[in-house]
Amino acid sequence: MTTYRLDLGYDGSGFHGFARNRDVRTIQGDLEDVLEKIIGFKIEMVVAGRTDAGVHARGQVVSFDVEADLDMERVERSLRSMLGPEIAVNGLVKAKIGFDARFSACSREYRYTIDDAPVADPLTRSSVWHVGEALDLGAMNRAAMAFVGTHDFASFCRAREGQTTERTVTRSHWERRDPLLVYDVEARAFCHQMVRSMVALCVEIGRGRVDAESVPDILVARDRNAARGAAPPHGLVLWEVKY
Amino acid sequence: MTTYRLDLGYDGSGFHGFARNRDVRTIQGDLEDVLEKIIGFKIEMVVAGRTDAGVHARGQVVSFDVEADLDMERVERSLRSMLGPEIAVNGLVKAKIGFDARFSACSREYRYTIDDAPVADPLTRSSVWHVGEALDLGAMNRAAMAFVGTHDFASFCRAREGQTTERTVTRSHWERRDPLLVYDVEARAFCHQMVRSMVALCVEIGRGRVDAESVPDILVARDRNAARGAAPPHGLVLWEVKY
Repeated sequence: MTTYRLDLGYDGSGFHGFARNRDVRTIQGDLEDVLEKIIGFKIEMVVAGRTDAGVHARGQVVSFDVEADLDMERVERSLRSMLGPEIAVNGLVKAKIGFDARFSACSREYRYTIDDAPVADPLTRSSVWHVGEALDLGAMNRAAMAFVGTHDFASFCRAREGQTTERTVTRSHWERRDPLLVYDVEARAFCHQMVRSMVALCVEIGRGRVDAESVPDILVARDRNAARGAAPPHGLVLWEVKY
Repeated sequence: MTTYRLDLGYDGSGFHGFARNRDVRTIQGDLEDVLEKIIGFKIEMVVAGRTDAGVHARGQVVSFDVEADLDMERVERSLRSMLGPEIAVNGLVKAKIGFDARFSACSREYRYTIDDAPVADPLTRSSVWHVGEALDLGAMNRAAMAFVGTHDFASFCRAREGQTTERTVTRSHWERRDPLLVYDVEARAFCHQMVRSMVALCVEIGRGRVDAESVPDILVARDRNAARGAAPPHGLVLWEVKY
């Protein structure tokens, strides 16, 4: 049995998320179907970050076990030619015994990009959230810093029965690159819709509708209604996974 | 009679260029049709830079004359709501008497973006040319500098009967912004396919297939076969027009 690691990027616009789902187009569905054609049998893959519909990836990682030795160069070349231009294969390598794209990961980094210029740029409309109102970067960074550390993020997650919502955020920072605002956030793991919920609150703070110092209270509330919903998926990119 | 100036950006991917053309979708066609619906009569517009199929714009300028005084705020709002997200209206203003988007322009700036990383980024595939081979920036800039000044660009233009191909390039510079290479070029005016032809030659030079010092000879040849064809349209953006 050999474990392989596949590194991917994708434009999530036309997909109903990563995870295979009947009757809709998903990244996993496309990948597994094409891999089956190439190697001749079905494989089951494990993914580092299950991205939602419309969310993109630059550094997604997938692992799978195969009982045969693959001709990796041929498989990589075939993947590149058979997958659409929406999915980029960054590399296929043999992984160490026991490697698991999900459980071996020590951190995930996401990037969210906002455009706060009055008029949207048509060229970035599928990967940048156009807020269209000047945002206060200083206030957003005061809020972003309050997320760093170990907290119960229940106010910022779509709850899943019986699962903890405690997470450790190691980095959370907004930067202006005119006309864009770029948010980089890193944690060992995130819960469902956590980054988009954090971004939505930061934007309300950047607009001046919510006080920048309110983040600790919202965390303590452990109530999704205390936050401000979720930012749209198309501004979000799974940027990097570290092992 | 009042002259209006309309500033635009667009994603040229789904269009057969700017200029109206029967049976195909064009920027001018969309604009004139929507303007007719809003103001109740046909207008004829003049454009600063007629972009080819697939070419984008950030700072395109259009002018048109109308015999009535327009409610500019209403027209601008209606344009924004009736045009697709591929076209951004940056502003509509009254222009000075005699203003002509094409003939009043003192310079046009284009930007061409290349990605020379091994694997293409799916998120930029409609606005960046993925060359996929590391390019030599120094050589490309030696070539780019040789374009600056007044030259006969016949080797870099699709000829048009009876028209001069002499042009004055005031700026021509490549910059690396990993993993991208960004080319900014400015001239009073360009001839047809000139920027894309200059880019194609620079890339061949960056690949080491053509000598960086060959540009003056290729200019002197005044022969399209002396150059290296045209780079794909989707990497090109009409960046700014100055008046």
